[in-house]
Amino acid sequence: MFTNYNKTLPEQTADKIIQYIIENNLQVDDKIPNEFELGEILDVGRSTVREAVRILVTRNILVIRRGAGTYVANNTGVSDDPLGLAFAKDKYKLANDLLHVRIILEPEIAAMAANMANERDIEVITKQCDKVEALIKQGENHMLEDVKFHEAIARCTGNDVIEKLIPIINTSVAVFANITDRQLREETITTHRAIANAIAKHNSTDAKHAMTMHMLYNKYKIYELIDKKENSN
Amino acid sequence: MFTNYNKTLPEQTADKIIQYIIENNLQVDDKIPNEFELGEILDVGRSTVREAVRILVTRNILVIRRGAGTYVANNTGVSDDPLGLAFAKDKYKLANDLLHVRIILEPEIAAMAANMANERDIEVITKQCDKVEALIKQGENHMLEDVKFHEAIARCTGNDVIEKLIPIINTSVAVFANITDRQLREETITTHRAIANAIAKHNSTDAKHAMTMHMLYNKYKIYELIDKKENSN
Repeated sequence: MFTNYNKTLPEQTADKIIQYIIENNLQVDDKIPNEFELGEILDVGRSTVREAVRILVTRNILVIRRGAGTYVANNTGVSDDPLGLAFAKDKYKLANDLLHVRIILEPEIAAMAANMANERDIEVITKQCDKVEALIKQGENHMLEDVKFHEAIARCTGNDVIEKLIPIINTSVAVFANITDRQLREETITTHRAIANAIAKHNSTDAKHAMTMHMLYNKYKIYELIDKKENSN
Repeated sequence: MFTNYNKTLPEQTADKIIQYIIENNLQVDDKIPNEFELGEILDVGRSTVREAVRILVTRNILVIRRGAGTYVANNTGVSDDPLGLAFAKDKYKLANDLLHVRIILEPEIAAMAANMANERDIEVITKQCDKVEALIKQGENHMLEDVKFHEAIARCTGNDVIEKLIPIINTSVAVFANITDRQLREETITTHRAIANAIAKHNSTDAKHAMTMHMLYNKYKIYELIDKKENSN
């Protein structure tokens, strides 16, 4: 794939298993042939197959269910931390950098969603908006449902790369750079609703503006927190 | 990290090794302690350490140099195919989806680069622009150097997420969705140079426009190729 080094036999076999999954149109949760069968199909030994499967499990392409077999994993091929953000040293800078990328991407995505959303999409987005609002009002943690709201919008675009990218960026915010946690409660309720309504009306300009507003509330909140931190040092 | 399943001991140990790298401020190409020492430090057996290291090698966090030891990998933590694009079925749709994300991101990044670039950055970008131009004129494959041109611009922004993201997206284009290969030769030379010059002059508007033009040449070339393909079916 990306790197140019000479691949080992297990790595080559891993690539061949990916090819097999694609060619046989296997979907998430489909079972793949067992070690013995894969060895026959790909003409390699069982220990090579085992090593290749291990590589694909680590890459979240396959999942082993003990006693049941090996299956195609959910969110196929996206690892735990695809951007390698676990290595970021300054959480505040990371929060800011991630948000900057969201400021560039998400308003355009909201506009695309407004153009593309069908009735079913609108229903999903509206329900997810209700869910986040209810959690905020109950004082519960809404981070995970909030990520799902943005994912639902990303899915409307029909763009496979956006669909993969937005969960990565938003989950990274939640996991590695969660510094505005449960602040901006009123602002989140208001701007989420404005985004959902604009998408429901297929108004791409309003959707883009509402998403921009939502992002910028976060931007200035992060600046405020960075200022506070620096003054307290 | 992202997933919520209960982690196995080797996976937990892998997380602890990451923590060790961060806490000891180890950089790319730094050597990590050997299996025996890591086992002592993390209080686990050698076979667990070995398994954990294997996981981190697959995730491109560590690299084993035979006979020399285990080192922190280059482009730490970014795997071969972080977006899982090897599973895309329609190369033309993937090319289009990837380009759409670039159309959203890269003009903004070029503008940021124009604002932020120092003399050294400008020198690197200009030299990389020369290199791509020379390859195109010689009729050589310029894809890899072209990716490096866009990476050099992304690095000027000082945004760690953009720095990680742009190589992923551009290399994905080169590896998985290379359908405009070595076309648009004159257009690439002209727009690359306009981007480099605008960044050198710290003119963010011009940098953004030149990058937009560069992207849109590609967009309409992809449409042309999709049309041609559909008509030939």
